[in-house]
Amino acid sequence: MKIGIIGTGHMGSTLGKLWAEKGHQVFFGSREPLKAQELAGQVGHAAQGGSISQACGYAEVLVLGVPWKAAQETLQSMGKMDGKVLIEFINGIDMQKGPVLGHTTSIAEQIAAWAPGARVVNAFNSVHYETLLEPNFDGQSASLFYCGDDPAAKTILAQLGAEIGLDPVDCGPLWMARQLEPLGFLWVYLAYAAGQGPQTAFKWLKR
Amino acid sequence: MKIGIIGTGHMGSTLGKLWAEKGHQVFFGSREPLKAQELAGQVGHAAQGGSISQACGYAEVLVLGVPWKAAQETLQSMGKMDGKVLIEFINGIDMQKGPVLGHTTSIAEQIAAWAPGARVVNAFNSVHYETLLEPNFDGQSASLFYCGDDPAAKTILAQLGAEIGLDPVDCGPLWMARQLEPLGFLWVYLAYAAGQGPQTAFKWLKR
Repeated sequence: MKIGIIGTGHMGSTLGKLWAEKGHQVFFGSREPLKAQELAGQVGHAAQGGSISQACGYAEVLVLGVPWKAAQETLQSMGKMDGKVLIEFINGIDMQKGPVLGHTTSIAEQIAAWAPGARVVNAFNSVHYETLLEPNFDGQSASLFYCGDDPAAKTILAQLGAEIGLDPVDCGPLWMARQLEPLGFLWVYLAYAAGQGPQTAFKWLKR
Repeated sequence: MKIGIIGTGHMGSTLGKLWAEKGHQVFFGSREPLKAQELAGQVGHAAQGGSISQACGYAEVLVLGVPWKAAQETLQSMGKMDGKVLIEFINGIDMQKGPVLGHTTSIAEQIAAWAPGARVVNAFNSVHYETLLEPNFDGQSASLFYCGDDPAAKTILAQLGAEIGLDPVDCGPLWMARQLEPLGFLWVYLAYAAGQGPQTAFKWLKR
């Protein structure tokens, strides 16, 4: 497959390297064509490098490996992409608020506003009750992602979760529910809309 | 620990049952106190049942086990919760849009708007480049969550991901990036803000 990698960052260059090693024809494109050529030389496996428009003209699959602030300008410089596959993985991130687009609040924060004085912990969004009853998946315990603004309340939650066999993962302050509620929805979607069923769960892997 | 379960749904009743079995003092509260008492009788382990206000008065840890549409009214009926731990896990869900609060668009959708004709696939948001290089975590391959509106483009992405050792998980149409981008942010938060580092990944468990 002819794959164009736009940008020379870690993700794009690593994907390009791995796919080149697997026999795909990889073309790195950058606003700095010399940098892209240098990268292609390091990668080997007949990888090529050049301008963004060269990469786009060459490839049937494109990887948008640029930061959010450069995305619009880069896309404009990529020209027509009719029918091409465009893979993107931009995490436009504000470290105080999460994703920069469209994720402005959460049910957990609304609940905290409706429950003044309560030490709210958001947890279990992506854990089905059948997972509560059997948290073990072939030796892997399902993860219990949780967040909240009160450390002692979170410790209580983590202990209660661990007691029933879940793997507690502290996900930070309560506004991180803006991430955990979408994770809960992703679980619902995969289990029901995508038909994978309730014998499913998320695991936080660490080594 | 004195635990109050508000609502008699699957999640709340299962948590109450499990924690009662672990020796905690569980009080089920419901708008229908008789239903809560019946549930407590089934659970055993000295679990009690009654009204919502009884459960709240009794417990130091409260579980809000009601649907989103009942949340505000239920919280009003719970009275003062000063200092109590309130565990909530409401996935307020619109099956066409995801979480009902605050998640209104995604970078992937914006990119698709800026790249007319391109078959955009959102993927790799929660996969670090070090995970690309070593996707195996003690026998578990990291998951590659992806979404897009073009099935053939998604098939290409899934094959490319599987070739480099990732476990592809089709997460539906492109607007599901509203879930995958928060998942990406959750990864960044856990790895960097929470200090767990980049040798971490998410896994979709299934049995």
